[in-house]
Amino acid sequence: MLVNNKNYKTIWATDKNKIFIIDQTLLPFTFKEIELRSLNDVAVAISSMQVRGAPLIGITAAFGIYLAMLDDSSNQNLESAKKILLSTRPTAINLKWALEKITSQLLEENQKDRVAKSLIIAKKMASQDEEINQRIGDNGCRLIEEIYKKKGQQVNILTHCNAGWLATVDWGTATAPIYKARDKKIPIHVWVDETRPRNQGSSLTAWELNNENISCSIITDNAGGHMMQQGMVDMVITGSDRTTFRGDVCNKIGTYLKALAANDNNIPFYVALPSSTIDWKTDNFKEIKIEERNQNEIHFIQGKDQNGNIVDIRITPENIEALNYAFDTTPSKYISALITENGVCKANEKDIKKINEIN
Amino acid sequence: MLVNNKNYKTIWATDKNKIFIIDQTLLPFTFKEIELRSLNDVAVAISSMQVRGAPLIGITAAFGIYLAMLDDSSNQNLESAKKILLSTRPTAINLKWALEKITSQLLEENQKDRVAKSLIIAKKMASQDEEINQRIGDNGCRLIEEIYKKKGQQVNILTHCNAGWLATVDWGTATAPIYKARDKKIPIHVWVDETRPRNQGSSLTAWELNNENISCSIITDNAGGHMMQQGMVDMVITGSDRTTFRGDVCNKIGTYLKALAANDNNIPFYVALPSSTIDWKTDNFKEIKIEERNQNEIHFIQGKDQNGNIVDIRITPENIEALNYAFDTTPSKYISALITENGVCKANEKDIKKINEIN
Repeated sequence: MLVNNKNYKTIWATDKNKIFIIDQTLLPFTFKEIELRSLNDVAVAISSMQVRGAPLIGITAAFGIYLAMLDDSSNQNLESAKKILLSTRPTAINLKWALEKITSQLLEENQKDRVAKSLIIAKKMASQDEEINQRIGDNGCRLIEEIYKKKGQQVNILTHCNAGWLATVDWGTATAPIYKARDKKIPIHVWVDETRPRNQGSSLTAWELNNENISCSIITDNAGGHMMQQGMVDMVITGSDRTTFRGDVCNKIGTYLKALAANDNNIPFYVALPSSTIDWKTDNFKEIKIEERNQNEIHFIQGKDQNGNIVDIRITPENIEALNYAFDTTPSKYISALITENGVCKANEKDIKKINEIN
Repeated sequence: MLVNNKNYKTIWATDKNKIFIIDQTLLPFTFKEIELRSLNDVAVAISSMQVRGAPLIGITAAFGIYLAMLDDSSNQNLESAKKILLSTRPTAINLKWALEKITSQLLEENQKDRVAKSLIIAKKMASQDEEINQRIGDNGCRLIEEIYKKKGQQVNILTHCNAGWLATVDWGTATAPIYKARDKKIPIHVWVDETRPRNQGSSLTAWELNNENISCSIITDNAGGHMMQQGMVDMVITGSDRTTFRGDVCNKIGTYLKALAANDNNIPFYVALPSSTIDWKTDNFKEIKIEERNQNEIHFIQGKDQNGNIVDIRITPENIEALNYAFDTTPSKYISALITENGVCKANEKDIKKINEIN
């Protein structure tokens, strides 16, 4: 997607097989490409959220395996790299999926072929991610179009956090239907939840929509309920970090509150996700281990001061505790439908299995 | 309540009848007492939120009438002062209540007596506010005590925004039961919603609880739903800016979302309010005009930089719109009970009228 009118992806390999990402911790104020040179660079990039978003984390980890193979392509190093990368973000189900996919394939290769093969696999996973997101976009766009046909006016879509192209290789998950609707000339406006504490909504989603000239407004995480009561929201589309096979959605903290409000106001609540984020094992969503992040994410915030410098400031009183959960789980009963690359389905075991052709 | 171990109220008249407030826009980083010298000072103090919170706004406006009378005690100036003060915060119902109370009494006085009389009335309203809040505290404390007796362990209370002593003259509304429970040695912990965009939870509620040595943690506005799902919240107590006689509660934006989550998790949701904030006229809460504040409250934030300076920084990308509603309305069906100075009652017309002895 466009950044200052130039097309970008979030991760790419150069002709000389160097791996680059956009340092998303510096957005929206500074746009900086950085090279990942080692497994350690990749582990830091994921855990410090230079790259974030379930799909992108998985792809980045795959490139991390390539960088680890460059260093030492033994079975032992492969297993060790997998373990290191798995521990960077415990909630992301497709980090595990991506790592298992690439390592199982590499274990079948001769050690000497693993460098070349790991790069091929990682690149293929990246291009598949783009394709998957485009399919999510096409499937979700039909839902926007239905509302537009009924309403005959601009469709107002609320989204939470960043499930945009920055969270994937390109297109995004929750935003893919929005970009596709824009391409179809459907008038849309996006209400972007700020998404505390890391403000991925205001810093990333609003930034990327603005770069693509899509009409949007930042709102606080507190505002969506009121705006739904007032008829200002036609639909909600969020992403998902992990969706259980029962249809419960583990996503950025606060998603659950918006789903409750949408339900209370009869507004459709959609979740866009690649099928790789479906958790086929977890029966009860309360078993999902929710990442508790550093409380300093609540105490400190980054922004631009009057002199144009990027600074971190403390916004809470000294000597007070904060508690910082990163995700919550929205029970399936509050989800109108899941939008996947394989189609749109109800958030229940039967329909999820049917669409993914699992018996 | 205590600030650095010294007892304070939020507004007070000195022996020489000078009126002082705490500049709450500077909290939690700077504690500064400022003098209000004129009607204009008072109007600015209310609209810029140097004083905020429904009860305190009303009392401050009453002192504003005193300062206006000092300047010119004519009927014309009394009406003009009332009009100016009424326009400072459109949603606060008891701003209107306080202004009508003091002006109607003054209109019955001779012009020459209005200065002395207005000060007496304003001071009396301030001491009545304290008394009312203590009664709210006693009534709400019994609800905390009931939970403590059942649970036999620390009672975890979630609150939103600041309905603390800083929002009143002393004690607070939502916090009064908490202070009373502490005085009764009931073990409590308070989850304090940050309360974007002005962060009154983290900047004011957490600051005041910490000054009173009450155990608390700041959480993001997004977190409460997840924590309720996980059994980490035993009850919610919020304040109210305006409560319709039907029991619908207009309070800080985001209150509605917490009420939905409490309802979904069978957690009692209480609203503490002085009966002066009951709106006896509004039939349908959707008619309440919700204050839309300056979008810069979302774009900019204040905090302390590494050198200890208080700075404002921009936290959103340039050239992006934000929309900033200040309040929302929680339908009565999601409210377990109202805690007033006259007792605890269900959030419905019949019970509200009964407790307030209105037929």
